[in-house]
Amino acid sequence: MMFGVTILGNNSALPAYDRHPTAQAITLHEQVFLIDCGEGTQMQLARYKVKRGRINHIFISHLHGDHYFGLIGLITSMGLLGREQDLHIYGPPPLLQIIELQLDVASTTLPFQLIFHGLEQEGLILDHPKFSVECFSTMHRIPCFGFIIREKKKPRKINRDAAVAANIPAVYYERLKNGDDYETRDGQVIKNETVTYPNTPGRSYAFSADTIYDPAIAEKTKGVNMLYHETTYLKDLEERAAARFHSTTVQAATIAKNAGVQQLLIGHFSSKYETLDAFLTEAQSVFPNTQLAMEGTTYLI
Amino acid sequence: MMFGVTILGNNSALPAYDRHPTAQAITLHEQVFLIDCGEGTQMQLARYKVKRGRINHIFISHLHGDHYFGLIGLITSMGLLGREQDLHIYGPPPLLQIIELQLDVASTTLPFQLIFHGLEQEGLILDHPKFSVECFSTMHRIPCFGFIIREKKKPRKINRDAAVAANIPAVYYERLKNGDDYETRDGQVIKNETVTYPNTPGRSYAFSADTIYDPAIAEKTKGVNMLYHETTYLKDLEERAAARFHSTTVQAATIAKNAGVQQLLIGHFSSKYETLDAFLTEAQSVFPNTQLAMEGTTYLI
Repeated sequence: MMFGVTILGNNSALPAYDRHPTAQAITLHEQVFLIDCGEGTQMQLARYKVKRGRINHIFISHLHGDHYFGLIGLITSMGLLGREQDLHIYGPPPLLQIIELQLDVASTTLPFQLIFHGLEQEGLILDHPKFSVECFSTMHRIPCFGFIIREKKKPRKINRDAAVAANIPAVYYERLKNGDDYETRDGQVIKNETVTYPNTPGRSYAFSADTIYDPAIAEKTKGVNMLYHETTYLKDLEERAAARFHSTTVQAATIAKNAGVQQLLIGHFSSKYETLDAFLTEAQSVFPNTQLAMEGTTYLI
Repeated sequence: MMFGVTILGNNSALPAYDRHPTAQAITLHEQVFLIDCGEGTQMQLARYKVKRGRINHIFISHLHGDHYFGLIGLITSMGLLGREQDLHIYGPPPLLQIIELQLDVASTTLPFQLIFHGLEQEGLILDHPKFSVECFSTMHRIPCFGFIIREKKKPRKINRDAAVAANIPAVYYERLKNGDDYETRDGQVIKNETVTYPNTPGRSYAFSADTIYDPAIAEKTKGVNMLYHETTYLKDLEERAAARFHSTTVQAATIAKNAGVQQLLIGHFSSKYETLDAFLTEAQSVFPNTQLAMEGTTYLI
């Protein structure tokens, strides 16, 4: 099953060099999650053929404009296109007021239910049979949250021949899928792994949002398959990064290394940089399995 | 002196076929006026090399998102780029609340003065030695204003040889430039046109904004050099246009004809149309001097 992140915007603050403000579409099975929604995101979704009808959950990390100014346009376009299914939006509480005010002055009534979830503390924010989403705080100028999307661990697969040979009744197969052992009438224990095949473990993606270098993020994102971490600046501008509550290449890569993740994706590049090669080489010097978040590219998790 | 309108967005409601929501940059001498500011306008300004530093006056016709969702992004980008000169914004009063709320949640303090002018009734809204701007009501679902930018009539030029021959003292030349006649000591009147050359009359541009077909607009825009009028639909969808408070090609062209303008520019095309040829032929059948508002093109007034 597909689990991947499509980059819709990889730039910080100002649009530049045809790079757009932050937005990512995460495809997990049939769902598309949108994380952040900078100005022009609805055009980027069309450009990269991400189906907006599949977006049911939108996560906004914080209320700097380059992370949410495209949200109201996307919502109203969904309404104009006749969307009917519920739309869940997760973000800092004042976001609801901003949305409602703009719908109100336009006398717009959406044809679908907009369900707003205000983010105020770390924890589980979405629990679904197939996946979960948690949020965690990052250290920025204003309240800011990262997100971890976890695919749930899948059930084990039955080894039919072995299960039949062991005389396990079919009614018990659901419990086998969940990993239970089977005990026969005469007290013999048939170990689960002798009658089932393991399935792939659930994968996970962490989006770390805007942040100053904060070692706690390595703890919060420990062991995820892929970590996205902002790298607004190259390493020589570490002081400027700190002053503006942003991170450098080496800092992002250090977090990835300490978190023990498999892959690092870096983005949120400052508009001062026309080319991005140095971001990759600097980050890879600390964490080799790093990729640049390039717009229009989908990174598999 | 240059007086022209550069189209940054010519589409209605939803972006489609690489057409963007409404925005126009009007260059008049050294000024750039921005009329409407749909999502992505700051990117369109960059794409078509319109200098945002020259924009000191922004006019927002009404609070449907396709006419202003790009404003907050443009304003904050101007701030990030260190703009210092005043910025005047003219629009429906709730727009100020929308701007202030979004600056507030981001803890943003702009490095320039934002001077807001709430539009509540028709009339003169900007008076400058070289130009003036008026607003007028159009008939839409919510309060909506069109704008007329008028270059002021320039002073006449002195015909020096004739003025000297007529013994008119140089101190009187300023009054000659304004069109006054001169009376000699012995009561003889020297007609202004015998000692001055006429100068080109001031040009004018009217932006009619979203509107149902409203014959009053022909009166309000009487005799302007160029009229921009919305044509959301082709003529066969006149009923749908009326139901949605929009206009058709033939209706826009009828307004232009009745207003006696020199040129008609049409735009705000519905996203249902992939090609636009029929808009031009239908409008030209009523008003031949019609042009399609195409993004990236500058139309001279």
